[in-house]
Amino acid sequence: MAEYQVPLKDMSFILYDVLKADELWQSLPALADHVDRDTADAILQECAKIAEQEIAPLLRVGDEEGVSFENGKVTTAPGYKEAFQTYVEGGWTGLGGLPEYGGMGMPKVITALHEEMLCSADISFSLYPGLSAGAGLSLGKHGSEELKQTYLTKMIAGEWTGSMCLTESHAGSDLGIIRTKAIPQEDGSYRITGNKIFITAGEHDLAENIVHLVLAKLPDAPAGPRGISLFLVPKINVNDDGSLGDENGVSCGSIEHKMGIHGSATCVMNFDDAKGYLVGEVNKGLACMFTMMNFERVGVGIQGIGSAERSYQNALEYAKDRLQGRALTGAKSPDQAADSIMVHGDVRRMLLNMKALTEGSRALSTYISLQLDLSTYAEGDAQKKGENLAALLTPIAKAFFTDMGFESTVAGQQVFGGHGFIREWGQEQLVRDTRITQIYEGTNGIQAMDLLARKVVASKGALFTLFADEVKAFIAENSEAEMSEFIQPLEIALDDLQSLTDSLIASSSDDINILGTAANDYLHVFGYTAMAFIWASMAKAAQGKLAQGDAFYQGKIKTARYYFARILPRRLSLINTAKQSSDVLFDIEDDLF
Amino acid sequence: MAEYQVPLKDMSFILYDVLKADELWQSLPALADHVDRDTADAILQECAKIAEQEIAPLLRVGDEEGVSFENGKVTTAPGYKEAFQTYVEGGWTGLGGLPEYGGMGMPKVITALHEEMLCSADISFSLYPGLSAGAGLSLGKHGSEELKQTYLTKMIAGEWTGSMCLTESHAGSDLGIIRTKAIPQEDGSYRITGNKIFITAGEHDLAENIVHLVLAKLPDAPAGPRGISLFLVPKINVNDDGSLGDENGVSCGSIEHKMGIHGSATCVMNFDDAKGYLVGEVNKGLACMFTMMNFERVGVGIQGIGSAERSYQNALEYAKDRLQGRALTGAKSPDQAADSIMVHGDVRRMLLNMKALTEGSRALSTYISLQLDLSTYAEGDAQKKGENLAALLTPIAKAFFTDMGFESTVAGQQVFGGHGFIREWGQEQLVRDTRITQIYEGTNGIQAMDLLARKVVASKGALFTLFADEVKAFIAENSEAEMSEFIQPLEIALDDLQSLTDSLIASSSDDINILGTAANDYLHVFGYTAMAFIWASMAKAAQGKLAQGDAFYQGKIKTARYYFARILPRRLSLINTAKQSSDVLFDIEDDLF
Repeated sequence: MAEYQVPLKDMSFILYDVLKADELWQSLPALADHVDRDTADAILQECAKIAEQEIAPLLRVGDEEGVSFENGKVTTAPGYKEAFQTYVEGGWTGLGGLPEYGGMGMPKVITALHEEMLCSADISFSLYPGLSAGAGLSLGKHGSEELKQTYLTKMIAGEWTGSMCLTESHAGSDLGIIRTKAIPQEDGSYRITGNKIFITAGEHDLAENIVHLVLAKLPDAPAGPRGISLFLVPKINVNDDGSLGDENGVSCGSIEHKMGIHGSATCVMNFDDAKGYLVGEVNKGLACMFTMMNFERVGVGIQGIGSAERSYQNALEYAKDRLQGRALTGAKSPDQAADSIMVHGDVRRMLLNMKALTEGSRALSTYISLQLDLSTYAEGDAQKKGENLAALLTPIAKAFFTDMGFESTVAGQQVFGGHGFIREWGQEQLVRDTRITQIYEGTNGIQAMDLLARKVVASKGALFTLFADEVKAFIAENSEAEMSEFIQPLEIALDDLQSLTDSLIASSSDDINILGTAANDYLHVFGYTAMAFIWASMAKAAQGKLAQGDAFYQGKIKTARYYFARILPRRLSLINTAKQSSDVLFDIEDDLF
Repeated sequence: MAEYQVPLKDMSFILYDVLKADELWQSLPALADHVDRDTADAILQECAKIAEQEIAPLLRVGDEEGVSFENGKVTTAPGYKEAFQTYVEGGWTGLGGLPEYGGMGMPKVITALHEEMLCSADISFSLYPGLSAGAGLSLGKHGSEELKQTYLTKMIAGEWTGSMCLTESHAGSDLGIIRTKAIPQEDGSYRITGNKIFITAGEHDLAENIVHLVLAKLPDAPAGPRGISLFLVPKINVNDDGSLGDENGVSCGSIEHKMGIHGSATCVMNFDDAKGYLVGEVNKGLACMFTMMNFERVGVGIQGIGSAERSYQNALEYAKDRLQGRALTGAKSPDQAADSIMVHGDVRRMLLNMKALTEGSRALSTYISLQLDLSTYAEGDAQKKGENLAALLTPIAKAFFTDMGFESTVAGQQVFGGHGFIREWGQEQLVRDTRITQIYEGTNGIQAMDLLARKVVASKGALFTLFADEVKAFIAENSEAEMSEFIQPLEIALDDLQSLTDSLIASSSDDINILGTAANDYLHVFGYTAMAFIWASMAKAAQGKLAQGDAFYQGKIKTARYYFARILPRRLSLINTAKQSSDVLFDIEDDLF
């Protein structure tokens, strides 16, 4: 396997040349005092070192050794503990954390790129700090000052980690029907009893305490999603002076044996009369969870990008080294027994698909992260617009980037031929590790419904128009001849997406089921179009740099050309099927399946 | 996991109602005396029993325990040996074997359906008899009478198994550069020395001897593919009286640790001055291998179908049982906490994709098998036409059915949500097991080149015309109103495929690289169009049975409708990209990747 190298140059290109993030930071008072280009560059370079040198080498041991479970205790794979300690000592657990509680307060565009590096290095490892950061985000937003002083400071410092306990075995994504109970106590705390499954980092040996955020229902809570509250439940109770006290009624019942991410502990967590503290208001637990949902869902999308990047680097190295067959145009290396497989059109197709999809996803993900930053740090209209664009694009980040990431890991495996199927070459692990990203944090089917039904149709197209206006403004600003090869197809793609959107809003009033049957296709049409927008933006930025004579910018423009010629047309079939009535799916009785 | 049930009704429908295989058998003198509908039905029913009861239960143990390797010996997973013995005792190793050497001489349409059952049950298990049958086929066609009497009879009887030793670590699919040497001996035998990798069933404990068919080069052989000869190399030498003698210079150096098919031994085989016997003529080894290639490649395609069927059965049972969320049109089961996930359009989309692709693949695979039977058992023009159609459609069988099979196993995993990622539920294994089918026996990229360059363009479209004429005849025969919903889009799809074919033949004379860059898209356009032809054929056959009042035929017609509405349009995007010049892939210098 190739040694992982963080694509710092591409990250820098996206941040500064394409998105002008540095200008934005300086314009936002909440960021201007502590975020600038020098700081960001230093952070990304340091993070690249730790990802490349400390974490990337854990990828295979995490897979082969996995986590082990004995007597309720989870032991992580050899090397995880030391790497986590190095990560904590570097201050990385506080990268995006609130400065009032010891964090560095870095914006999402920075933490997102840091997440990508971690995920390229080892998704399993990334989940321990990742879940902790997510829990910290929710606690920071909704927890009482006392909870934040006691718990959040420790989480940001990396002394303790966090987990999110949502799913129950009978309920899956249908949180409205969870059964975990919370009984109010006289001292204002609660006693939590119930069982949760699929709890990432629910138990492990990396930190001395674990802070669980748990969804549960009060005895008199209304049925359904409006009766859910959020509680903080520590693994070990904390004394008034902040020291660790006795064990709480929290135990890990077992861990799952999974297709991939073997290094990540996926736990069954049992809460047995455990002491818990309300976070936010009673019966508003789902809203508290949704605070972090957009951040987390973009984070899962980034996992797909991280794997895809690693797979691409490996596949490219292999393709350049591997000699097999001859170019159709005649031997390229007549002095060797065979040409490198880079001469084969189908190998180039797979590599360019990976490259165009991964770089496009990285840029679009950073664009969405920037909207999240606007929603957090801007004010007035800019804040609202950022919030709405982030809400609209988050399901695309989660589902589209993970679908493209999975495609890229499968393609990277295919480039290796038979060796791609052999564990020691490492490519097959990336496929297995990435597969979960399409499933957890809301399956990609649920994301598609979120996009089409909750975001696009429920806003009667208003959220969509916000995005379309961004693209239209870009089109209007770039009417010069050099950009027309990108602008013309972008304009057609946007028009088609607009028509499809209008058509689905209209037809769903008569055929509500079309929301379900069209959602997946719609999300992908939207994703490919949004990616065309960002590839055109990258082409524009690269054209501005061509005079520097750096081949990197030539590569950008040629990859953009590939994207428009060979990937964007995927939308044609999807538009065709998305428009069709739902009858063809619902006229078949269940017993005819 | 659902208990696997062989889809006998669908198999019977395809064989008799759609393809009229029974009429064909009676018309072919080579088959008429021993193959009729009663025989075939009895065989399929008996085979279904063994697949469901003896082999299907091995799927998980094969995965969890896998094969083990110690001191050059391979031990299969618990239960494999007993199941193989049962399989042998049932006479199944001789199902397609030549009657002169103890086989049952069943046509490929029967053995293909039998293979599907085995693959649904456990691909890993299926590979032991599968490779043996493939080696037997080659030996039966090209071996001397003495070799056949000594070895083939034992292989057909299941006492010994066979393997195919082609790949070497430096050469992969580029067989022209293999290094294994064969030195002629005075007694007419050869001494074989070299190392082979990825040898399925190269070593195991299921039979007392293993008959390796090995590609090697004579000292004075011409360079490249025209210098390759085929040799039979037994694991244990055979005495003149047929009893086993001393060990030959054949050893298993190690086994691979793989993503999937853990129950299958994938061996590094070392030949060290091993005694071997020429099969066929000197330097014509590749041609001998190609005898079995079409059969084997269709066989790998069938592995994809088998996995897809199993995944579909599991996913359907899960979807019907799993309660989550509510129908968009209002609660379907208001008395329960939630509706079954069958109410969700996106779940139906995944299930119907699986159903339409799997049943379509089964029918098309049987159609292709029937061409193979014509090529083997018919005479004159019918024989030639069958041979040509089989040659044309074989790469589609291998690549398209495995791509669709992989898609279906991934979809079946997705239906399970988080549980799909957990090993004990079984769905993730099907994804891992199926992934190899897109890689081995010639990667799907190689299949696509075989189709476009070697079959379509090299014949200047003549092979394609043969297929197109079949479809046109069907269209002409079915002009009645009830068929127009299928015939009209089929006609458009065929016209578009014809145009694409013409366009690629024309443009490849100036742009030879387009063969490589368009091949994958072209194969899929062809696959979807061929599948539309077979779905229209199934719809036609089902319409003829509707009066019987059996819901099965309603289901067929509605699934055909789904295929035309929701899957066939995939070709639109692929046609668009297949037509584009190769420049966009080749203008990017390798160091810009």
